[in-house]
Amino acid sequence: HARRLLTELPAADVAHLMSSVPPRTRELVWKLIDSSREGDILQHLDDDIRAVFLGRMAPQELAAATRSLDTDDVADLLADLPDDLYREVLRSMDEQNRARVLKALAYPEDTAGGLMNTDTVTVRPDVTVDVVLRYLRLRGELPEATDTLFVVDRDDQFVGTVALSTLVTSQPEELIEDLIEFDVLRIPVDMKDTEVAQLFERRDLVSAPVIDEEGVLIGRITIDDVVDVIREEADSSLKSMGGLDEHEETFGPVLQSARRRTIWLGINMVTALVAALVNNAFEGTLEQLATVAVLLLVVPSMGGAAGNQAVTLTIRGIALGHIEKSNYRWLIGKEIAIGMINGLIMAALLLVVIGLWKSWLLGGVISGALLATMIAANLAGVGIPLLLRHFNLDPALAGNMLLTTVTDIVGLMTFLGLTTLILL
Amino acid sequence: HARRLLTELPAADVAHLMSSVPPRTRELVWKLIDSSREGDILQHLDDDIRAVFLGRMAPQELAAATRSLDTDDVADLLADLPDDLYREVLRSMDEQNRARVLKALAYPEDTAGGLMNTDTVTVRPDVTVDVVLRYLRLRGELPEATDTLFVVDRDDQFVGTVALSTLVTSQPEELIEDLIEFDVLRIPVDMKDTEVAQLFERRDLVSAPVIDEEGVLIGRITIDDVVDVIREEADSSLKSMGGLDEHEETFGPVLQSARRRTIWLGINMVTALVAALVNNAFEGTLEQLATVAVLLLVVPSMGGAAGNQAVTLTIRGIALGHIEKSNYRWLIGKEIAIGMINGLIMAALLLVVIGLWKSWLLGGVISGALLATMIAANLAGVGIPLLLRHFNLDPALAGNMLLTTVTDIVGLMTFLGLTTLILL
Ligand SMILES: [Mg+2]
Ligand SMILES: [Mg+2]
Ligand SMILES: [Mg+2]
Ligand SMILES: [Mg+2]
Ligand SMILES: [Mg+2]
Ligand SMILES: [Mg+2]
Ligand SMILES: [Mg+2]
Ligand SMILES: [Mg+2]
Ligand SMILES: [Mg+2]
Ligand SMILES: [Mg+2]
Ligand SMILES: [Mg+2]
Ligand SMILES: [Mg+2]
Ligand SMILES: [Mg+2]
Repeated sequence: HARRLLTELPAADVAHLMSSVPPRTRELVWKLIDSSREGDILQHLDDDIRAVFLGRMAPQELAAATRSLDTDDVADLLADLPDDLYREVLRSMDEQNRARVLKALAYPEDTAGGLMNTDTVTVRPDVTVDVVLRYLRLRGELPEATDTLFVVDRDDQFVGTVALSTLVTSQPEELIEDLIEFDVLRIPVDMKDTEVAQLFERRDLVSAPVIDEEGVLIGRITIDDVVDVIREEADSSLKSMGGLDEHEETFGPVLQSARRRTIWLGINMVTALVAALVNNAFEGTLEQLATVAVLLLVVPSMGGAAGNQAVTLTIRGIALGHIEKSNYRWLIGKEIAIGMINGLIMAALLLVVIGLWKSWLLGGVISGALLATMIAANLAGVGIPLLLRHFNLDPALAGNMLLTTVTDIVGLMTFLGLTTLILL
Repeated sequence: HARRLLTELPAADVAHLMSSVPPRTRELVWKLIDSSREGDILQHLDDDIRAVFLGRMAPQELAAATRSLDTDDVADLLADLPDDLYREVLRSMDEQNRARVLKALAYPEDTAGGLMNTDTVTVRPDVTVDVVLRYLRLRGELPEATDTLFVVDRDDQFVGTVALSTLVTSQPEELIEDLIEFDVLRIPVDMKDTEVAQLFERRDLVSAPVIDEEGVLIGRITIDDVVDVIREEADSSLKSMGGLDEHEETFGPVLQSARRRTIWLGINMVTALVAALVNNAFEGTLEQLATVAVLLLVVPSMGGAAGNQAVTLTIRGIALGHIEKSNYRWLIGKEIAIGMINGLIMAALLLVVIGLWKSWLLGGVISGALLATMIAANLAGVGIPLLLRHFNLDPALAGNMLLTTVTDIVGLMTFLGLTTLILL
């Protein structure tokens, strides 16, 4: 009964179901799947979950499972295998399958080459619509998401496109060369996949041609794969900001999740102990004034919150391609200004609360520290991701650790420093 | 010169440029834009930036600017206008434009109805391919992203689709009814836009029919608008987690940004003062043991980091539709287990550090507090978003504030409580 239900579900839905259940249930689902569908379902699974099942299949099974997949998807699957298994799978493939897969594997996964398929449908400019229609009828079924035919000349140089919708609304005797759209996006094979995604998004594309340095058409990128890039990019930004490994899955194995999170927790422990060292330098102050200890978390907490706002906005601005060198100055100025405005508002509130609760002098000291820390937090929030990007590191890594290290230390130093100077 | 450059840039790229510059430069760019392109560019701008320019255009200008836009995009534009301006713009439209816009405005923006266009191309089942081709040639240009024709019966009931790629590969004398794909996704008009996006993603769709309760075809959703939904959803999760309003833009006006962030900072201030109240209850302990004050931030910081990991994973699991009631128990169990494993590892490390630095007894106390806090943090990290969702609130709001409130309080209470019991 459950088996029949699974048979009727599209492969992507089975994969979604498998991502939505604990590991043991996932095993049960996998056992019920017909082996002819395994490849199709594997390609839709998240990397971590997929690795478990890939690791268990025989090379021959894997080679068979990949036969029905798109080239780009086979390449993705194989890229995740350990080297020896990977070579064995390639050996188990028939000549034709191996040839196309090796070609796809030649391009890095995160470039246009790694995203593309080689299933382009091409026509020559000097034929009529009627000839093309007859050719297509002979050819039979077109590849998925084919919305345009690619026009190439005798040297396979890409000339332009003719949309299927143009083809079906044109008279049979019209020449293809009169219908060509020349002004189309040509994607260089080495373009970053995230840049490809931004172009698809902005131009509302369904598919686009990929060309090599000589202008020769070598493949085609389709929107379904671009959507996956967009989703994965957004997902990995969110995970980086949350201190998670980009491969961690909601229903991944417990021990693996625990191990992956340990690194970030370890780094956070170091930063927390550095903050403790700052406090230690002011042990005398803390000894004499317990009230200072009572309020010790307030300034670092506010600095963390303000800095987190700035860091989030900066990281998304970088991801969306909004932030360029020419804007750095304006952006940094903006965050400092916001730090000052909100710092003044929050400092005024805190002055009143602490003034009424403890003493006005202490209120003045903690408000001053708060103002300085919030300005520093906003500056660090915009500066740290920009610096990380400058050194080609993932700006989202700044999200938690680096930023709160800065805000904790600045917050504690200003508060304890001012207290020591003024109140003791 | 700059004006010519702008003229050659597609509308979406002009909008992207406008999102990537400070407000004053944006004004300059806007002035250089030909008024016939204003509507097209406005539709691609982010809400906040758009509002500035919308507010300044005369109703007649706005009505003219919207004429060339897709119905769904006009509806989006108008939905952002103040009520009086909105009515005036509608009045300034010609009859036909007003009628289609009013129809689109009848559906909530975040449903299939708000996403759809009414530009469907329909055919009857009982005609041949040749008849359809001749009809299409008469009709001329098809709407953007038309990859399928919709087959409807005499009562406009949706029957199925015929892909353009099927049409061009079929013999002229074949009947449409023999080519129909019946097993296609029919989107109910009231489906949530995020659910529509997940279906498009999983089934790799380019377009899909929208039907009403009676099964009548009323519109069509295309992948370009779905991509926008995916991007906006991801963007607003990230912003919520960072304590930002979903409308805040990287290059938005300074004062507006500052005002929007104040609310979250105010809430964080309250939570920080609650944490101070906890400390205040233990003022005696802090007075007697300055070392405790020195280490005061360590446990809350670690609790925040661990909880943030759990909360991030839970929020993305909810957004991706992976988390169902039937999985709650397993997921909560998983997070508690991870809290215990990583809590034990971190507690062991901290025991050694504090044991060597301060005293082994204090090391034991702080490690115990750390273990308890990390378990509580992971539990809160998974529990708070699930609770928020249960009450139909945005789970991402839990990201910072609620979670760190819990972890700060638990961290301080366990550390100060254990210290008071054992060390004093
Ligand atoms: Mg991969
Ligand atoms: Mg690939
Ligand atoms: Mg778009
Ligand atoms: Mg593909
Ligand atoms: Mg794919
Ligand atoms: Mg920290
Ligand atoms: Mg809107
Ligand atoms: Mg809409
Ligand atoms: Mg997909
Ligand atoms: Mg559009
Ligand atoms: Mg549209
Ligand atoms: Mg749109
Ligand atoms: Mg907090």
